Amino acid sequence: MWSRETGRNACPNFMKALRVDKKKLAVREIEKPESGVEALVRVLLSGICSTDLEIARGYAGFKGTIGHEFVGVVEEAPDRSMLGRRVVGEINAGCGKCELCRAGDARHCQSRTVLGIVGRDGAHAEFLRLPVGNLLAVPDKVLDEHAVFTEPLAAACGIMERVTIESSHRVAIIGDGKLGLLCAQAIALTGASTLLIGKHAEKLRIAERRGIETNKPGTAAKRTREFDVVVEASGSPSGFVGALELLRPRGTLVLKSTFQGPGKIDEIDQARFVVDEISMVGSRCGRFQPALDLLKKGAIDIDSLISEEYPLARGLYAMERAGKRGVLKVLLRP
Amino acid sequence: MWSRETGRNACPNFMKALRVDKKKLAVREIEKPESGVEALVRVLLSGICSTDLEIARGYAGFKGTIGHEFVGVVEEAPDRSMLGRRVVGEINAGCGKCELCRAGDARHCQSRTVLGIVGRDGAHAEFLRLPVGNLLAVPDKVLDEHAVFTEPLAAACGIMERVTIESSHRVAIIGDGKLGLLCAQAIALTGASTLLIGKHAEKLRIAERRGIETNKPGTAAKRTREFDVVVEASGSPSGFVGALELLRPRGTLVLKSTFQGPGKIDEIDQARFVVDEISMVGSRCGRFQPALDLLKKGAIDIDSLISEEYPLARGLYAMERAGKRGVLKVLLRP
Repeated sequence: MWSRETGRNACPNFMKALRVDKKKLAVREIEKPESGVEALVRVLLSGICSTDLEIARGYAGFKGTIGHEFVGVVEEAPDRSMLGRRVVGEINAGCGKCELCRAGDARHCQSRTVLGIVGRDGAHAEFLRLPVGNLLAVPDKVLDEHAVFTEPLAAACGIMERVTIESSHRVAIIGDGKLGLLCAQAIALTGASTLLIGKHAEKLRIAERRGIETNKPGTAAKRTREFDVVVEASGSPSGFVGALELLRPRGTLVLKSTFQGPGKIDEIDQARFVVDEISMVGSRCGRFQPALDLLKKGAIDIDSLISEEYPLARGLYAMERAGKRGVLKVLLRP
Repeated sequence: MWSRETGRNACPNFMKALRVDKKKLAVREIEKPESGVEALVRVLLSGICSTDLEIARGYAGFKGTIGHEFVGVVEEAPDRSMLGRRVVGEINAGCGKCELCRAGDARHCQSRTVLGIVGRDGAHAEFLRLPVGNLLAVPDKVLDEHAVFTEPLAAACGIMERVTIESSHRVAIIGDGKLGLLCAQAIALTGASTLLIGKHAEKLRIAERRGIETNKPGTAAKRTREFDVVVEASGSPSGFVGALELLRPRGTLVLKSTFQGPGKIDEIDQARFVVDEISMVGSRCGRFQPALDLLKKGAIDIDSLISEEYPLARGLYAMERAGKRGVLKVLLRP
């Protein structure tokens, strides 16, 4: 039952959700979740991540509602002070009992669920559930269209949780997609000399407008052994091999993207790692607060990263668009 | 011309050396080096490293005298205070001009030579040359047979230059060869809980006698995701894959051995590195002083690591022996 006037589901117990079942992706009508001990959030906007495209292809064997980037409003919560608040939400929900959870970081809890990725329905829906402890209020001055980038921006900032980047460092980021552009902008704010390497002039221009040096792959190949830190954010095995070449001895390679599927690296020369004492560091989710702080300051160009917006009902088409070359962030509005 | 009495070359301008040329290994009679601006060291003992075996097989394309583990006596030096001193020597000789060399660490100088490995004749000879700055005096109470282990022990201690190991950490070392046994002993001294994983009961017993826990591969496989740090010192690709399994999320894999030749890793699951935020750190040469300090204290069981000793003239046979299963360190005496 749909209301023509509001475009929303007039039946209060059902909602639309973009779901994957047996690798089949569809916008379906499902029961609206009950909050229980968690908070119920009405989604205002959600963002399509490359991980969503991989999950739709069967990565991680996930079944359910996909999506993990959102901004929404709390409709129900055990903590009544949260009601009506505009929020974003960290995506890992831990068991609350293990050593890691008790230390306040559920990101590596072995029993965790992950919004729209592992064992928990996600954000491309009218409503979602998350523990209250995962939610952060969005400052008034941050637009919905910017707040929805909190999760990927936190992932970019998460690099600095894993690697110390000093202002004297030379850092290269490989990949001019959404993630690479966020990583380059976040890293440039540390004062380090920052180079973004990509293949698309119009995407590289977004970084250039923030004063970030850019380079095309053909010319980057000449800059071997120059960089203290190289961030692989292209998601391609060739990006990985190129990243190694750019690193100085004792440099650090940050792996930011999972390849499509649980890909294998065939070309690592292990002797290079030992002889040149290279470090390789995996980086996944970052804390939300530093990202929200940057959004509040307007320190990141988000507008240039938004390519298209569709109503959730057109989720299938939106996913198709998000997979096209040249398309950056695609947003869904329930 | 050989003197029967001393067993040494009676012709003062020639000496024996174990050399590799066009992949052919032989003990040859060559000109004794001149010291020039460097120090001339008469070798008392040298040790055969697995890297020597790889170089003899063609690794790194080296031609010349092999060997990089030694203890000797300074016979000529520009700095006369060094004459007659018993010394060991760091194996990387830098250009002296680059940023790294000026900071006092030639280990990653791009123009470096490396004793018996890159562009510089090595230690399986009656005499060798090294810059005076590379030499460290051996404390009187350290036996020659122990001092000759300074280089590999420094390599083991070098792990602690690359990774912070805390006493609360759980560390596993894979490989019960010479290097693994030195790594396990050096790491155990940090107070961290230390497990050595190997395949040879008699080698594992050496570690057990130092109070180090040991484990055979069949049982180690059950200890997944338990360790903060895992050191791969087995030199086998299966060791690498096993190492990943043992690591907790955000754990650190230390690569200590180059595989035989510039081997490829085929089985890395990059997603594992990103999702579990694993770090991988290459480690090669360590500083000599911490190793000498440990030898002086008698903190490391070296005697159990010495399998056999041969005169340099029997260098070919000694190399053959060093490659046999179950044989630990083989020493050469010029």
